[in-house]
Amino acid sequence: MQKIKNITIIGSGNVATHLGKYLYNAKYKIDYIYSRNIKNAKTLAKSVNADPVDDIAEVHAKSDLFLIAVSDNAIEIIAKQLNKYLGRKINVVHTSGMVSSEIFRGYFYNYGVFYPLQTFTKEREIDIKEVPFFITAGNDDFVKKLSKVAKKLSSNINIISDKERKVLHVAAVFANNFTNYMYSISKDILESEKMEFDLLYPLIKETTDKVLSGYNPKKIQTGPAVRKDYNTIKQHLKYLKKYPEYKEIYKFLTEKVTD
Amino acid sequence: MQKIKNITIIGSGNVATHLGKYLYNAKYKIDYIYSRNIKNAKTLAKSVNADPVDDIAEVHAKSDLFLIAVSDNAIEIIAKQLNKYLGRKINVVHTSGMVSSEIFRGYFYNYGVFYPLQTFTKEREIDIKEVPFFITAGNDDFVKKLSKVAKKLSSNINIISDKERKVLHVAAVFANNFTNYMYSISKDILESEKMEFDLLYPLIKETTDKVLSGYNPKKIQTGPAVRKDYNTIKQHLKYLKKYPEYKEIYKFLTEKVTD
Repeated sequence: MQKIKNITIIGSGNVATHLGKYLYNAKYKIDYIYSRNIKNAKTLAKSVNADPVDDIAEVHAKSDLFLIAVSDNAIEIIAKQLNKYLGRKINVVHTSGMVSSEIFRGYFYNYGVFYPLQTFTKEREIDIKEVPFFITAGNDDFVKKLSKVAKKLSSNINIISDKERKVLHVAAVFANNFTNYMYSISKDILESEKMEFDLLYPLIKETTDKVLSGYNPKKIQTGPAVRKDYNTIKQHLKYLKKYPEYKEIYKFLTEKVTD
Repeated sequence: MQKIKNITIIGSGNVATHLGKYLYNAKYKIDYIYSRNIKNAKTLAKSVNADPVDDIAEVHAKSDLFLIAVSDNAIEIIAKQLNKYLGRKINVVHTSGMVSSEIFRGYFYNYGVFYPLQTFTKEREIDIKEVPFFITAGNDDFVKKLSKVAKKLSSNINIISDKERKVLHVAAVFANNFTNYMYSISKDILESEKMEFDLLYPLIKETTDKVLSGYNPKKIQTGPAVRKDYNTIKQHLKYLKKYPEYKEIYKFLTEKVTD
């Protein structure tokens, strides 16, 4: 397998957009941007000097890597189409935390996963150097090639199995999705009372900084739940009566923490 | 009421320790440190050049402020004792987010709350300048005096009502306690699989940084729940079978987010 120089990107969402731009900045030639929506394909293609297409039949087999950054349930559909038009010899990865690399078995000889573990927002720049990349691939040569690409983007490269990536993905739901959801509840409660959410910023910052500096979250858990301070809990629940949904969440999580 | 110069601190826990040290550094004279446990009183007293006592009868009325930083349910007990030995003329505050300032009515003429909204860990230094202080007091003169003290410590001073402080406290449970609990679950899952929690640090940092830079958490919610990606959710729940408690939490919160 020769060195990866030319890349085609399938998709135009958050991950495709971020990876496309960082790969382009790292001097990779982006051949095509495919999207079902040609307008989206054009937007991204323009910024990475690629050809936009909305039909996979128009993508030619010359790219050294086909990077599929689409929703999980579309990955196999894309794989089938790529296989149909370009055969089994192309190199293919997807970027999903959840989908096994084995979804490509039978479609291609060289397949794998190129998973950046980060929460991407389209307009927001991130420091790609700090983003952990997780590589999974069936053969060592392809692992090496993919690692080389990842190393051009980030300094945090990890070779893992499909199973390990799934564990990461579940853990990330707790650390990111549910955490963010707690922030949104907190903000909603304050703003309903005409108070500013940013009053909590120093608290939020310190909560996270502690964990990022190595404190064990289990050991630094504070608040009425872990203290089994039932009087405060009762008062909080009384206050939360006007937000039945949040009251239920408060009660549920408090029971889990006090357990 | 004269300017506050001398302070007695009732308590020797996290809040008492941090406030004691920062007040001492801000050139306040700390008269006494009271704790039921004389050893704890001595430890803190030594670092702020105060007299340690374990009997409130030994505290003299000369302090300009009595700062009660004890657990919520002990505040009124302390108030009764202070009233018994020192009368109604002393100036008294507590540091609780939850307890009304009115708990002091009938015990003292000048009473209030001096509430630093931060998560304190004994050994960990924080930037006190950034900590928001929330002042509640029955009369304007006392509010001014307390604000002056708070301003020596922090640049973020807010005058609020008892009710507003309660709202803040509830919101902080979501933003800090429950968030930290999510981190502890995340860490536990990874470490059970012999993977390192720090693989998630960049994700955790970015999740928080986004919110702290003003993104609305509700609008940047990502993950399978908000996408209603039931296939991924099903796979996550299947994986979580070996952690029944976490599976239940995942299921519960996912239903709330998809709602």
